Amino acid sequence: MKTYYLDYVATNPLHPEVLEAMMPYLKEEFGNPLSNYPLGMNARGAIEFAREKVAALIGAPKPGCIVFTASGAEANNMALRGLALAKKDKGSHVIISKLEHHSILNTARFLEKQGFVVSYLPVDRQGLIDPAALKKAMTEETVLVSVIHASSEVGTIQPIKELAAIAREGGVSFHTDAVASVGNIAVDVEELGVDALSLSAHQFGGPKGAGALYVKGGMRIVPLIYGGIQEGGRRAGTENVPAIVGMGRAASMAAQMLPVQQGPLAKLRDRLIEGVLKTENVILTGHPTARLPHHASFCAEYIEGEAMLLMLAAKGILVASGSACSSKALKSSPILLAMGIPSGLAQGSVVFSFGNSTKDEDIDYVLKEFPAIVTRLREISPYAKDGWGDSKEG
Amino acid sequence: MKTYYLDYVATNPLHPEVLEAMMPYLKEEFGNPLSNYPLGMNARGAIEFAREKVAALIGAPKPGCIVFTASGAEANNMALRGLALAKKDKGSHVIISKLEHHSILNTARFLEKQGFVVSYLPVDRQGLIDPAALKKAMTEETVLVSVIHASSEVGTIQPIKELAAIAREGGVSFHTDAVASVGNIAVDVEELGVDALSLSAHQFGGPKGAGALYVKGGMRIVPLIYGGIQEGGRRAGTENVPAIVGMGRAASMAAQMLPVQQGPLAKLRDRLIEGVLKTENVILTGHPTARLPHHASFCAEYIEGEAMLLMLAAKGILVASGSACSSKALKSSPILLAMGIPSGLAQGSVVFSFGNSTKDEDIDYVLKEFPAIVTRLREISPYAKDGWGDSKEG
Repeated sequence: MKTYYLDYVATNPLHPEVLEAMMPYLKEEFGNPLSNYPLGMNARGAIEFAREKVAALIGAPKPGCIVFTASGAEANNMALRGLALAKKDKGSHVIISKLEHHSILNTARFLEKQGFVVSYLPVDRQGLIDPAALKKAMTEETVLVSVIHASSEVGTIQPIKELAAIAREGGVSFHTDAVASVGNIAVDVEELGVDALSLSAHQFGGPKGAGALYVKGGMRIVPLIYGGIQEGGRRAGTENVPAIVGMGRAASMAAQMLPVQQGPLAKLRDRLIEGVLKTENVILTGHPTARLPHHASFCAEYIEGEAMLLMLAAKGILVASGSACSSKALKSSPILLAMGIPSGLAQGSVVFSFGNSTKDEDIDYVLKEFPAIVTRLREISPYAKDGWGDSKEG
Repeated sequence: MKTYYLDYVATNPLHPEVLEAMMPYLKEEFGNPLSNYPLGMNARGAIEFAREKVAALIGAPKPGCIVFTASGAEANNMALRGLALAKKDKGSHVIISKLEHHSILNTARFLEKQGFVVSYLPVDRQGLIDPAALKKAMTEETVLVSVIHASSEVGTIQPIKELAAIAREGGVSFHTDAVASVGNIAVDVEELGVDALSLSAHQFGGPKGAGALYVKGGMRIVPLIYGGIQEGGRRAGTENVPAIVGMGRAASMAAQMLPVQQGPLAKLRDRLIEGVLKTENVILTGHPTARLPHHASFCAEYIEGEAMLLMLAAKGILVASGSACSSKALKSSPILLAMGIPSGLAQGSVVFSFGNSTKDEDIDYVLKEFPAIVTRLREISPYAKDGWGDSKEG
């Protein structure tokens, strides 16, 4: 059966050109980057070349601001924990949003156990955070704010520039989790005015096992992984050279492709949204316009999301119900609930996301299959039994 | 120029069969292991298959005891920090040795800042830790002991079984950093009687970017990386599927090869040791017999180690002066100093380590070139100027 992979926010296929760039480092160029002979120096050079490319993709003024990690989650942990701990003597209040990924949310809970107080910024029905709410939440004790750039679950892009400016005015560090945005929309750390930013290679055609944290020059951060002198002493462990090389190549390609790819992706997205919304009792989640160009997310009433995913998969359509990192949990997404979407509706969540292999035919196929699946599921849904109107609030 | 790669403790070349096993996961099998459609389930299955193989290599009773990490350093950080924090209410004393890798040493320093008291077990001239010293160091407050299984710097293998038994008698958790030993000598967690054990794939023909921590069933550990539900909630972040698959394949191969490979490697080692020691004023570091079969380390008096490495590299012989993770620091190894080797002698440190590609001819070549390089360096050495006897203590 032909498959339609529309789950790019879960992970991207590795771009063949990226794999090609990685291959020498999976074969003859196997040196440890810290070894002081040519084999080691070649690996070290390859890492520094990749660092320049990643820095360029996000407008980092110096390659040295990039710390390579093994994942976006590690970058998020390092940022929230490391920036908060570095400023512990100045205050113990941290602000995040209710839209954050588990790697931020659960690190915040760890910080709470360490004596920090954490505030959670609310979001509106379209998944937007009000900059006024941040201003209100900030106190003399606040040392760090972390707000996700774009949600992989609902696609909404936050006004990071405004939020970061408010933090800066208050002398507070600002981090953004840009895992879902970097490589998919233009991201410039200086334009956004952030102090730290997380990204992940497998979100833009790079390999799994490579992430990075941008940390503004001169900003102190407590390491997450202690040990050797790798990454300027900020992140220990023998570097995953092939993955870092791949991340560099993917960053170069993303920088080149961004201007030409965003428009066509947004067109596919808008066609999908328009078509899907013709199905009765299906709503778009997230913001209609301030959203990732490759992302369309919905909730279908009276439907259990996992059942919908299985039926879509049976037709070859591979999509997610929300964040892949919690997809086995089978409960309503806290993010959708925070946006004020009723629990019953939130359970019927589905996320379509695209990449460079996505074509018009894929959208046609989804628009042909999706309404029939929704109808079929509603016929067997316990939620829908007593008629459509009664169970709207789940 | 032909090169003689004799720095297997820095990193191994990736075994071609391991790369072959990884390739599908770098190409068509790119799914996120948490995705609930076949592409994701295939990746999940591949990870669980690898987990079984890694568990089998170290005699772990259940695959679920294996937590995949991105490096041995991450496994060490997770173990020392996570096991100590999990027992913080029971006591705040941790014991490590003076032989530990920086990933243990610097995590211990972090724990000191968190209010823990850390004791450092001494080592003898051959790099051995006396079990009696551990017994003496343990107090009512001790919650965790961590001792390296085998040193990549001096090759000595510790009496982990005896050390772990002493910890167990005192109701204290025991971790061992087995990064240098797993895959190179037989390691069985139940026979050793350890509660936790770190290992790294690129030390036995596997890829960089994959490590693991064995944690005994039922033992609580505080995560290092928070986030999604990966690795049973113990280590978040999208799994590096290709690297984990490679680690599994390398573990299978190592388990098969160990019985047949150790003997020949030890023969090469012993030939090298015998030959090198014919050079005047060169000593073997570490234990003469309780040492890694693929490891021979020396100190040459009146010589600066980095200069020796450069001259060896100029002859195509690629070796290390000590731990790759600190090789840029250019100072005497704290491990050699802890063993009572005088600073001047410790500076002339060189480590040869072998793998399956190492042949008798490699040893012949080293034995031909090494003495001439030592002689040449001594001719230009400032340490040697005033005659041989005077500067012995550096």
